[in-house]
Formats: sequence, C-alpha cells, structure tokens
Amino acid sequence: MRKLQKPSPMPFHRYLPFEDQITVSLPDRTWPDKTIKAAPRWCAVDLRDGNQALIDPMTPDRKHRMFELLVNMGFKEIEVGFPSASQTDFDFVRQLIEQDKIPSDVYIQVLTQAREALIERTFDAIAGAPRAIVHLYNSTSVLQREVVFKQDRDGIVDIATQGARLCKKYEEQLHASSETPTEIVYQYSPESFTGTELDFAAHISDEVVEVFGATPEKPVIINLPATVEMATPNVYADSIEWMHRNLRNRDSIVMSLHPHNDRGTGVAAAELGYMAGADRIEGCLFGNGERTGNVDLVTLGMNLFSQGVDPEIDFRDMSTIRSTVEHCNQMGVPERSPYGGDLVFTAFSGSHQDAIKKGFEHMDARAATAGTSRDEITWAVPYLPIDPKDIGRSYEAVIRVNSQSGKGGVSYLLKSEQGIDLPRRAQVEFSGVIQRRADDGGGEVSGEEIWQIFQDEYLPVDSEHHQWGHYRLDEVNTSSNAEGEFHMEVELQAGGHTATQSAHANGPIAALLKILSADGVDVRLLDYTEHAMSQGGDAQAASFVELAIGDRVLWGVGLDHNTTLASLQAVISAVNRALRDVAPDRQV
Amino acid sequence: MRKLQKPSPMPFHRYLPFEDQITVSLPDRTWPDKTIKAAPRWCAVDLRDGNQALIDPMTPDRKHRMFELLVNMGFKEIEVGFPSASQTDFDFVRQLIEQDKIPSDVYIQVLTQAREALIERTFDAIAGAPRAIVHLYNSTSVLQREVVFKQDRDGIVDIATQGARLCKKYEEQLHASSETPTEIVYQYSPESFTGTELDFAAHISDEVVEVFGATPEKPVIINLPATVEMATPNVYADSIEWMHRNLRNRDSIVMSLHPHNDRGTGVAAAELGYMAGADRIEGCLFGNGERTGNVDLVTLGMNLFSQGVDPEIDFRDMSTIRSTVEHCNQMGVPERSPYGGDLVFTAFSGSHQDAIKKGFEHMDARAATAGTSRDEITWAVPYLPIDPKDIGRSYEAVIRVNSQSGKGGVSYLLKSEQGIDLPRRAQVEFSGVIQRRADDGGGEVSGEEIWQIFQDEYLPVDSEHHQWGHYRLDEVNTSSNAEGEFHMEVELQAGGHTATQSAHANGPIAALLKILSADGVDVRLLDYTEHAMSQGGDAQAASFVELAIGDRVLWGVGLDHNTTLASLQAVISAVNRALRDVAPDRQV
Repeated sequence: MRKLQKPSPMPFHRYLPFEDQITVSLPDRTWPDKTIKAAPRWCAVDLRDGNQALIDPMTPDRKHRMFELLVNMGFKEIEVGFPSASQTDFDFVRQLIEQDKIPSDVYIQVLTQAREALIERTFDAIAGAPRAIVHLYNSTSVLQREVVFKQDRDGIVDIATQGARLCKKYEEQLHASSETPTEIVYQYSPESFTGTELDFAAHISDEVVEVFGATPEKPVIINLPATVEMATPNVYADSIEWMHRNLRNRDSIVMSLHPHNDRGTGVAAAELGYMAGADRIEGCLFGNGERTGNVDLVTLGMNLFSQGVDPEIDFRDMSTIRSTVEHCNQMGVPERSPYGGDLVFTAFSGSHQDAIKKGFEHMDARAATAGTSRDEITWAVPYLPIDPKDIGRSYEAVIRVNSQSGKGGVSYLLKSEQGIDLPRRAQVEFSGVIQRRADDGGGEVSGEEIWQIFQDEYLPVDSEHHQWGHYRLDEVNTSSNAEGEFHMEVELQAGGHTATQSAHANGPIAALLKILSADGVDVRLLDYTEHAMSQGGDAQAASFVELAIGDRVLWGVGLDHNTTLASLQAVISAVNRALRDVAPDRQV
Repeated sequence: MRKLQKPSPMPFHRYLPFEDQITVSLPDRTWPDKTIKAAPRWCAVDLRDGNQALIDPMTPDRKHRMFELLVNMGFKEIEVGFPSASQTDFDFVRQLIEQDKIPSDVYIQVLTQAREALIERTFDAIAGAPRAIVHLYNSTSVLQREVVFKQDRDGIVDIATQGARLCKKYEEQLHASSETPTEIVYQYSPESFTGTELDFAAHISDEVVEVFGATPEKPVIINLPATVEMATPNVYADSIEWMHRNLRNRDSIVMSLHPHNDRGTGVAAAELGYMAGADRIEGCLFGNGERTGNVDLVTLGMNLFSQGVDPEIDFRDMSTIRSTVEHCNQMGVPERSPYGGDLVFTAFSGSHQDAIKKGFEHMDARAATAGTSRDEITWAVPYLPIDPKDIGRSYEAVIRVNSQSGKGGVSYLLKSEQGIDLPRRAQVEFSGVIQRRADDGGGEVSGEEIWQIFQDEYLPVDSEHHQWGHYRLDEVNTSSNAEGEFHMEVELQAGGHTATQSAHANGPIAALLKILSADGVDVRLLDYTEHAMSQGGDAQAASFVELAIGDRVLWGVGLDHNTTLASLQAVISAVNRALRDVAPDRQV
C-alpha cells in the first residue's frame, strides 16, 4: 500500500513555522506527568471579550442577564467591560454598582490600555464597587512591536510600567475620595504573549509586578493570552511552565491563562497550561469571542466534572445556561458543542444504542445489588461520557426508519411536504416517536404516514368526540398598555370543564404557563421558536416550545395563522402530551 | 486576594478519574519535543461515521456530491459506508463501482463487524473496485467487555482473529471470481481503544496483524480510536507513543488515529498523537460525526498549512467546500469554526483593526522593497493567522455604529423593524457599508437611516430617472417539463437596452447566471438563502445570494412576493453592486 497523496497547489511556502519565530524549549518539562485534581480560579470574560466579538453587541438588558447568569453559576471573577473605550461599557459598570447588583464576594474586572486618560476613566467606572480587578494590558509580541508600536523592548516595558504607576496613582485618588472602600486587585496581560519571546514576557511581567508592589498576601494576576493560537497546545504548555519557573516573584503572582481557539485547540491549551502551573483561566461560555472564540468554559468545567473533580461552577441546568447565552449573544450553540449541543447525548448507531442499553441495565443491576439507585453509583455507560441527567438533559436514541433512508429522512419530508421546520432537538424527539409507531407497523413509513403520526402526536384532533388532550384553549384576549404591562384572559377547557382564567406576565407564553401552574402543572419554558410555513398569502405560523414538565422534557407544536395562538397551542400541545403519557385518566 | 469560589452542588463524586480506570504511563515520552513537518495520510470518514450521525442521513445524491468533493480535494482514502449493515450503504458502494466513479488512485474503505455474514456481504459490496480498505473492528474496552460482550480477553481476541481469517477467506473467493483484480488493504480497529488497557490493545492488534500476514510491503492499518475522549489529549498521545513502541511488527503497520471530540480536544489529540508516532488520521470535514463529532479535517489540514507544511489537500475554495458539506449534512458550519466559520476573519475590536491595518501596510512596504507583490511574501499580520485570500475568503473589519450600541445593533434593527434576517456573512458586509456612510454623517445612525442605507445599497430604486444599476429584469418566463428540464426566458435591460435572453439550467438562479456569463460577467454562486418577511397575508420573501464576481465576493438582496423573482433580483442586486463599484461608466 503506497501513500498516494499528492502535493497540493496551496501556497504553504508563505508561512513560517512557529519554531522559526519564537523559541520555546523546555526538554525537562513536568506538565505531561500531571493530572488535574482541582478547579482553577475561573474568570468569565463573556461581557468583554465575548461581547466585543458580536456583530450586534449586547443591549443593557442582555448584559444584565448575562451577568446574573454568571453570578448564579458561581463565577466570582467577571470581566464586565472596557469602560474607558466604550460609553455603553462605562454605563453598564456604573449600573451594576449603583443598582447594587454585585454580590459582596464577586470581583468585577475591567480592561484598560496603559494610557493615563483611559486609566483615570477606568477608576471612575469602578468607584463604589465592593471588589474590582483592574486589568492593564499592552501588546508585547515581536510582530506588534515592529509593525504597530515601532518601539524596542525598553519602550514597550515603559508603556507597561508607566501604566502600572498611573494605576497606583488613581487607586490612591479613589481611596481618598470614596466613602465605600473598594478592594483593588491588579492584572497585567502581556497581550499577544504567544508571539512574544519568553524572556521578554517574563521581564516585562516582573517589572509590572514590582511597580504594583505585589506580595503573597496581595498578589498580582499575570495573564498570559494566546491572543492568537500559533502552535500545538503542548508548546503553549511549555511556555507556561517556563514562565511558572522563571517569573521572579512567583509566590506573589496568580498566573492566568487566556486561550483563543484559532487552531481549534483552545480547550487543550487551557488544560495543558493549567497542568503546567497556571492558577486561573479566562474564557467564555460556549467559546464566544473574537474570530474562533475564547476557550469554552462549559467544556473546561464539565471536563473536570467528568473526571470526578468539582468544577466549582454549577452546570446542573444546562438548558437555561444555554438558552440565556443564546439570547444574550444572539448566536446559537452548535449542535456538536460538548455537553451543551443538541446532538451530544444522541446515539444514532445501532451498536452504540445496544451498548448503551446494556450499560444502563448493568448500572441498574449494580444499584440493586448495592441497595441504592442508579443516580448514586459510579457512572459507567458506553458512549456517554457523563449521565445527561446530571445537567438536566436526557439520552436519546435515534433509530432509522428504513424506508426513509435515501429519501431524505423524517425531518426533511416534514419540511419539504408540510413546510414544518422542526428544531434540532425536536427532530430527535420526533424520530423516537416515529420509531415506536414504525415498530408496530413493520418499519416502513411513508411521507403521508409521517405527517399522520406527527398530527396524532402533537396536534389536537378537531372533533368533539376525539378530544386529544386534557386542556383546550377556547378563547384568548390580551391587552398591553404603554408601560409594557401585559394581561391575558383565556377560556380554558380542562378535562371538559371550561373556566375563564387570567394572568399578568411579560408575554402570552409566560401568562399561559402561569395559568397552568395555578392549575397544578409543574411547567417551565426551555426553548421557543416559530416560523412561517410558506411564503404565500395563506401562510400559517408553526410554533415550537420545549417545556420541562415535572422531570420530563417535551416539545409541543402549534400551527395557526395567528402567531400568538400558534405559540399558545404549542404550550398546550406539550402539556397535553405529558398528561396523556403519565395520567391517561385525566383525559376526556 | 482570596479565592472566593465555592464548592458546587454537582454530583462529581459519581465519576472516576481516567487514571483510576486505565493506566497510561510513559515518563520517557518523546512526542513533546517533536514538531509536525509533513502531512499524515488522511482518511475521510464523512460518508460513514459522519453520515451515521445525521438525523436525516444523506440521500444518494448528497452522498455522490460528498464523494466528489472529497476526491476533488485530494483525499485518497475515503470510507464510503458500512455496506453489510445498511442496504443504502451497500447500494451506494455498488453505484460508485458500477458507474466507474472511483479514480484509480483512490481507496474506498468499508467498515465491517467481525461476523461471517457481514464479512461476506462486505466483499460482495466491493467486488470490482480498483482498491479497497476492508476495515474490521470489534470493541475491546474494559467496560464493553464486561457490560456488552460478557467475554474475557481471550474471547475478545477470538472475535477479532476469527474475523480476520474470514476476511482472508472471502478475499480469496473475490479474487477467484472477479475479472478485475481489487487491491485489498486491511484495517483493524480495537474500538473504544481509549477505554482499553494498552497491553491488551497491543496484543489483540498483534494477533490480527499476524493473521492478515502483514509485511512492510503490504502493511495492515491499525486504527486506534478515541471512540470516546476520556482524558486530556497528552494522555492519548502517551498511549499512541506506547503503542508505537510496543506493537510487534511496527514496520508492517500503518498506525492510524480516529479521535472524537467529547472533551473538545479532538484536534489536539490528533496532533499530539501524530507527533507520538502515528502515520494516518481519520476524521470528517468540519468535525461531523457521532455526538460531539469526529476530529475536524479542515482544522487539522489548515493548521499544517499555517505552519508552512503542505496539507496535501486542496482547501483553496473554502466556500465551496463548506457549502457542499452543509448541503450534504444538512447542518450548518458554526460561525466560529476555525478557517471555515463566518466570523473567523472578522475583527471587531478597534485595536485589532488598527494593528491589522498596520500589518497590511508593513507587508506592502516589504513587498515593494522586494519588488514583488504582497501575495508572494511571508505572511505576518497581527490577529490573522493566515491570509484569508489563500482560501478564497476576505478580511472584514466590523466597526460599531455608535448610536446602535445598546439598542440592538444593525442586524437586530433590520430584523425587528423590517423583517429582514440577514445571513451572518451578509451582516458583516453590511456593517461595513453602514460604517462608511456613518463616517460621512458623524457616526450616528438611526433605524430609519439604516433601512435607507440598506435600500440604497442593495435594492433597485423604483424610478426611471434614478435607475440603480446596469441590469434590470423586466419579464421572466420559466418552464419545466416532466423530465426535470428547466428553461427560462427573461427580458433583461442592460445599460438601458432591452433584449430577450434565455438559458437551460437546473433552476432559475443558475439560468440567470448563465445569461449574465454570456454577457461577459464572471460570476459564480457561493451561497443562497431565502425567508418569509412576515407571517401575514402580505408576506414578501427576502432572498440573499452571495456571489463571487471577478475576484470579489458580494451579497445581493431581493424582496418580492414571488419567491423566484426575489432570488433573481438578489442576483441582479449583487452584480449591479459589483459593476457600480468597478465600472461606474456602465451605469445608466
């Protein structure tokens, strides 16, 4: 067997290998023998590096939601903006402080360049905060020194140390003028660290640490960004271990990583760099950030969890984390994003499904022997690195419907024949429904049958004799006033009895959920999406909601010319499905 | 500064660290001192592992397109299916062979379990192929032995060696019965290698290699899958180097990697594993595959390219690669996917943009000094790891429009106020347009002004006196017959002169592009998308096309109640924009 690959016509000769640019040599590295036994100190930079990389930056409302989410998850260091560069960032920081939104054990972090006007403005921004990390940076790479700053090494060191001195000056003024004391911690980043000679990166960091007067009790954070990933992640780890050994006052330094993902190895760089001696990692949820993004804090944290290490961040409600991030960033989380993506707990292959089934059976047997439940024993199921239940998700087996292979599949047929574009997780759910029906009928299902099964499963039957579920919506009246208050009144049939119910909420779906909760249904909205089913004059809207009902997660579908009604019907659809399965006696 | 993080309530105690499951110890590892100097042997498994993980598997047409793409990119080893497990896979392999679609220097690869009926069927599938890799596997992990197969080590070895013997038997029958000889290469995977004790993985591989009678001239591929990523990527590299040293007949083995991405470190595992002694890597374009996906071959190949190493795969037309993959998989490539994502060559930060601008100026100066062009000299621009032009893309600077910060941004306002949902790359383009206009007017732009600028830029003005561009579409007639043939006749104004033009093509957009090409416009379709602008009875369709026109990439927009017309207007929009910019004299 010869290797038959041919040279490509690509202009690879235009690129210099990393080792011809920067020397990183550490033959006696120790990090490859380490394993990770405890969580690093995390810093979430979603509101700065992440927000900066959005086409449409977050509105103040979206910023507040992101901040709340990060606080609720347990982050104690949160970079909230670059207040001296952006009025909206400045205003947001002031709002956080003046509206008393910052818990007493949370450091807000603000970025600044090393220029006096910017530093002054930065300290104006943080006045009154309980704790703040002032994050000073300048670019130190060979390329940026030559091309952008046109300065020699000493000139670049002067920028940094002068900036550090100015920080101290404005800190003094802050303490003198402010009534509530702010605990100030300093952070310095030799930006574009990965393109900087190691000896110079250590030298400039040492100089800054000295100006700041760091001590073991009052350390300075030295943050070493892979502003651009330039080599395989082991090289980053070598450079971090080199810094770990060579920084002058290591015991007065919190060494921090800030990996980007240009080579798709940001997570690896963070993990190996942490093994190499770092104390702290900066990143964003689901890897938002400039270009390919910052390192993904969800993956990093959950990787620890999967090894029996407490991530010290609460990921139990992954659906809410994800939908909040998607709302704030106005960007979707990819289907294959570790731990959070739609398809990562789905098994398509028959042999995988078989092994998973046997894995569950084996766990049940072990639990029975131990006299406990499956949730209490060590997780060991093939193809599932963690129990999806631990983060509020579920395992789904997608089994093919024979006749569809080659014709486009279930969701393709629903889209092309009915104009219904099922969300990805609803596709997974519905393929399970199809399979259960197909098993009864011999495994062959036509496009028409798929549509019939879809209607039976999700849509109310339009006949009084075959009422489809417990609830039915007969009349809906809504009113909103100029203050943004919303009120909805519905005539709701429940088990055949009609009553008028009403609720105040921020919108129709929330109002209906409130009404259903009052009727004893334990229900929470996870996801919602809606689209037009055609472009013509008879366009209907298709609405999809994903609800947590009790301990189950279910989709509902509503089709209606009225977009509001479609979304309410979708809620009814999901709730009726749940009741139908668990309490058939509640059905009419 | 104390670490203020608290323990989380997550049930991390349910998980065993990897090192308590499998021992991987290699203190004298050598891989961390290696760098990658040449491309591995690639094997693309998009049509098997990738296809298997789609909710709607590829139709035969999509499979053929994927195969052609892989061949055109230069892949010489392509896993095309699991023919013994799936009739559609079997039929596809037969079509490839019988329709003579396999170039003489390409190996098709087929997967099989180690059971006689399946092996027999596998050899039936490949009869007549020029070259084929028969890929035999069984699962070898501790967990699967215990839970799924309930066999001891010897039993598992028997499954594998018995399978290998059966392969030899059916190979003989194939050679005896077939007129055209097929070059057969064998591949064996100890599946779930990462959960297998290293000594056992080596033992079972050695036994299989012996049955196959491997020699240095006729080696066997031993493929070591990270079926599930279970530890940091350095551990995978250690295990690969251990196998590299301990496999009995290493010189008769092509050692192959097959990383998945459960911990988000598939690319790193592949790179470090390759440094550790592997010869070959299996993966999928843009990382499709079960759960979190297979390792991404685009990232791996382009990472080599960025280090001055020939990837031996042609990535120059990234847009076509990406749109073909998106069509075949019916899944989008995420915005931040390295090298291929919409946002990876976009700079949002002002300081990044400034540095990039200076980097380009510096390159121009260097090129001028050397008496050559920018394209010929070594690439060195801050924040851009490669020249986007090398893969047919372009750098975009997104500059904020002041007044929009905090209000939702340009694309948000277009969506909420006009019902126009711009594709991500078109958002990037339009934000540049807005900025150029905003600079003239002082940096403040209202939602109304955004809509005015959008219309001026993309939509024809509805007045004879202010005709907006060179081309105008006056009448369109189309006809399709039962054989699927399509014909379109248009009355096209060009520079004020109207003529009737017509073309046969597979659809309206293709027909119009043909007509425009005949008129001397160098144009090619890169992307196309369309949506309804509202749910009501007056719904218009908004259509967006991305065209390569000469050496530029431009978006066009069409709005019309008629979806066909909307798409044609979008083509006219993009072409008129290109002509307007480069040849204003062609305008009326």
